[in-house]
This record gives sequence, C-alpha cells and structure tokens, in this order.
Amino acid sequence: MTPEMTIDDPDVVAEVTAAFMAYEAALMADDVPAMDRLFHDHPTTIRYGVGEVLYGADAIRAFRKGRGGSPQRRLGTVAIHSFGRDHATAHAEFVRKGDRRRGRQSQMWVRFADGWKVVAAHVSIEGAGS
Amino acid sequence: MTPEMTIDDPDVVAEVTAAFMAYEAALMADDVPAMDRLFHDHPTTIRYGVGEVLYGADAIRAFRKGRGGSPQRRLGTVAIHSFGRDHATAHAEFVRKGDRRRGRQSQMWVRFADGWKVVAAHVSIEGAGS
Repeated sequence: MTPEMTIDDPDVVAEVTAAFMAYEAALMADDVPAMDRLFHDHPTTIRYGVGEVLYGADAIRAFRKGRGGSPQRRLGTVAIHSFGRDHATAHAEFVRKGDRRRGRQSQMWVRFADGWKVVAAHVSIEGAGS
Repeated sequence: MTPEMTIDDPDVVAEVTAAFMAYEAALMADDVPAMDRLFHDHPTTIRYGVGEVLYGADAIRAFRKGRGGSPQRRLGTVAIHSFGRDHATAHAEFVRKGDRRRGRQSQMWVRFADGWKVVAAHVSIEGAGS
C-alpha cells in the first residue's frame, strides 16, 4: 500500500457516489450510451450478470443492445468505499419489481483520465446455500 | 488516473494470482485463519455470498466460523486484472461438486503494508434472467 492511501476519503466517496447514481439512473432509463460511457471501454472489463458472464467491453455492449432494458428495481443498502484516490467499490442491495428476493450488485470503479469507470461488475439474486 | 497507472502489469498480476490461489486452497481446506489473513480486517470489507450479505470483517469471520466449510468446487475460467501497483480484480467461474450450475466469484484485492488482501468479494450461482 502506498503510504498516502486513504480509505473512504470523503471527497473520493462523494465522486464515486455521484458516478454510481448516474449509472443507476442510466440503467433504469435503459440509456445504453450513458451506461457504456460509465463502463471502462477495455478488454479487461468484466460483468457477471444474473444470467450471463461477459468478458470485455465489446461483449458487455452487445449484451446491453440486445437486452431491452433491465428490470426496474428499488435500491436497498448502498455501501461505497474508496481505497486511495483512484479506486473504489460500490455495493448495492436491490429488489426488482415483482420479485421478493434480495438482489446484490457489486462494482469496482477506477478513475481514468476521462473520469470514473466501472472495470468490473457482478449482479446476482440471493439464493439458497452459502 | 495517475499517469503511471498500468493495467495488467505482469509482476502485479503474478502476485495477485498467487494470493488468489492461496485463498482458494484455504477455502477448500476450510483453513479459517488463512482465509481471515487474506481478507482485509476492516469494517469496510464486504462479502456477498450465495446466500448471505456480510458487511465488515467481523461479520465475515463469524460466518466462516459457523459455516463448516465451503462446498468443494472446481475452478473454470479465471481472470485476474490489475489497475496500478496496488489494486486488482480476480474473477473465477466454478462448479460445485454435485451441482451443474455455473458459479461465479469476484474479488477486489488491495495491497496493504502486510500484503494483498480481499476488500470485497461476491459469490453467486448463475440463475435465470439478466
């Protein structure tokens, strides 16, 4: 760890929270260009969705185009933590309309020259087992 | 992004790969102290498991102690990417013994003074939907 790495610097958390909320708004509006802009356009970007695994920004973009929008959802507990100036995690519980099960979304955000981007996301519905 | 941030520096990826494999071995052996050492001992650490959400290292430790070990599993595709010297993601698909569904595990790793630690983990079994 670099000596100056700070966990949960308030300014950094505020920036990532704004980016997280912008992504949530884009997802609910099925604003595909906005979602694309908030994901890192790179082969290393990974998205594990509820029903699919997608490696690389191209695969994620293709999925979004063919998806017809995310189910509408309501967020529950949201936890955003930063590690240094340029890296953060965003976790959110959610409930989809018409589904009583608990959903969970985790994202890793990195600050690039053109802003904060998701480099990895994982979405799942809580199941049985451990 | 700091100018010197490099994605997938080979030395960093090698270090995180070793830490990832050490965690996998500890998980399969139900070596709780080893697992605890590889998770960041901090209130910000989060683990979304297949059937639970755990906020903070204390909650994660309590879960591990009461769990009686993880189901045995075989890893599939593993993808480890680093963003700078001190931050990385590790993604792994897996199949649990006796279960044909695809499992997915994502972790965010951060390098601290005492080594690489998981600051966030999310484990799920692929389901229907998107």
